Amino acid sequence: MQTIELRNRPKIVGSYSIVGPKEGEGPFSKYFDYVMKDDRLGEKTYEKAECKMMELAITGAVQSAGLMINDINLLLAGDLLNQIISSSYAARAFNMPYLGLFGACSTMAETLAIGAILVNGKHFKNVACATGSHFSTAERQFRFPLELGCQRVPTSQWTVTGSGASIVSLDGNGPVISMVTFGKVIDLGVNDINNMGAAMAPAAADTLSSHFEGTKTKPEDYDLILTGDLGKLGSEILVDLMEAKGFKLGKNYSDCGHSYYTRNQDTMCGGSGCGASATVLNSYVVKKMKQKIFKKVLFLPTGALMSTTANQQGESIPGVCHAIVLEAEE
Amino acid sequence: MQTIELRNRPKIVGSYSIVGPKEGEGPFSKYFDYVMKDDRLGEKTYEKAECKMMELAITGAVQSAGLMINDINLLLAGDLLNQIISSSYAARAFNMPYLGLFGACSTMAETLAIGAILVNGKHFKNVACATGSHFSTAERQFRFPLELGCQRVPTSQWTVTGSGASIVSLDGNGPVISMVTFGKVIDLGVNDINNMGAAMAPAAADTLSSHFEGTKTKPEDYDLILTGDLGKLGSEILVDLMEAKGFKLGKNYSDCGHSYYTRNQDTMCGGSGCGASATVLNSYVVKKMKQKIFKKVLFLPTGALMSTTANQQGESIPGVCHAIVLEAEE
Repeated sequence: MQTIELRNRPKIVGSYSIVGPKEGEGPFSKYFDYVMKDDRLGEKTYEKAECKMMELAITGAVQSAGLMINDINLLLAGDLLNQIISSSYAARAFNMPYLGLFGACSTMAETLAIGAILVNGKHFKNVACATGSHFSTAERQFRFPLELGCQRVPTSQWTVTGSGASIVSLDGNGPVISMVTFGKVIDLGVNDINNMGAAMAPAAADTLSSHFEGTKTKPEDYDLILTGDLGKLGSEILVDLMEAKGFKLGKNYSDCGHSYYTRNQDTMCGGSGCGASATVLNSYVVKKMKQKIFKKVLFLPTGALMSTTANQQGESIPGVCHAIVLEAEE
Repeated sequence: MQTIELRNRPKIVGSYSIVGPKEGEGPFSKYFDYVMKDDRLGEKTYEKAECKMMELAITGAVQSAGLMINDINLLLAGDLLNQIISSSYAARAFNMPYLGLFGACSTMAETLAIGAILVNGKHFKNVACATGSHFSTAERQFRFPLELGCQRVPTSQWTVTGSGASIVSLDGNGPVISMVTFGKVIDLGVNDINNMGAAMAPAAADTLSSHFEGTKTKPEDYDLILTGDLGKLGSEILVDLMEAKGFKLGKNYSDCGHSYYTRNQDTMCGGSGCGASATVLNSYVVKKMKQKIFKKVLFLPTGALMSTTANQQGESIPGVCHAIVLEAEE
């Protein structure tokens, strides 16, 4: 059984999203808390900007919960950079215990899942969960220097510049994290680093079907089933894989990456990166749940667990997908 | 309060350690479960060997617990490589949910702490916790290609080639994980990547003093207080820092890295890497606790959370330290 039920009903009592200028021109624009004027945030490097974004997201989430930084007992965070430096260097700014996590682009669900379990078990009162990504740091770390101006292939995605943070607590108001499902590492042999959607879709299908089977629910039981950054192609593959497993994903299924940019923003298969699902969850989803427009949401971002070294050594790309169930407060 | 008490008494019911040839010539030699004949394990690259080591450690730990792989409900693992590929690619070999963690060399404690909480809360029956490191992958990722033959400075340490794994469960026999203490990120401005001990010692001092104060214990209450890879210099700094905080660490204090190699093995300040504390804990410490030679152990490995990018951008090195209390079964 991969799914855990959280009987004490931990809630997302605070949330915050900060995004780059390009992201601020997309369909979720009006839901984001802060759109940066430039994607360096006044810092000398993109890496320092990525770290600063996360600091601002955490601070913003704490404020949105009506709390003070000192009320937060634990920070759970992770990101895509080598040795998750955005998270660890952001953690330095806060005087609280810190757990570094790595789930690639599944990190928002991983932090929320562990955070919710810790709060549910009354081990900590208020925990902060955060992640983020930056287009320019991801490009130069995983692909090519921006200055090269490499042409993008049709299956590629655009790493979201943005960071999202949530505060989880038993006290306060917000969507309830009622269940978490931890995913297995699934690798069907895709080794094209320009086609992450195809690499990660099987992990999403595995976690999603385990979740439905374990909880005896079906796709129609959710107002929204939301993957992270499978993108246009990856989310179509997921629909196919789920159909083969006997589950029909309908209009209530969506993918943050696929919906992140408009057609004319030229991002090929859509958005990607930890920031994609983190900023959509902590803006659009939380707001719509507070308005009771969504009453039950299954949020399941996926992560591609490869590195450039693994890829250069001929390895394929393993994927993982963690899921959380969010329920609007009654 | 950073310390959590685990009232259901989760135990380390299985453990396994695998090390490289050089490590097999050190003082802990007779306690290790497996000493590799060569540090490539028949793989084409050192990275693949590091991954294979972890697979073997997990499999060995499961066997030592008298369980089957299918009895394990969750794997928690992390390592030093970019995007923790050793762990994620090792996880691919096992059909179980996986949580990737990053705490640099504090990872053994981080996996055990979260694993023990999950088992204590009866969310999972048996969980596997693993980490490891490899001299040759760490050198080329963090420092220089081995072929350059760079001279080592006196404060440098030698990354341990080795992997350790534990199985945590409420059923079975072994040392009880009675408490866990999560640490804060501490950065006092050290930016010398050849002096990790100095960078990490303040984090150890912070977690250790928080632990003593939170639990109202003192150094004499433990048969062994064991840090991870502070090394010769870092462990001396810790003793000084603790004295300044009013705690006198005596002969019951030791550091895995400092004790890992003999003087004539030419490792300057001693061993380092996730593998140092992971292999000592899962061999020497667990065995001595089963013999009741140690009845109460405070295990607190530290991690340096920097990356080469952060260092090249002039950043200092933040440290973190997570602690667990182990008690021999009554």
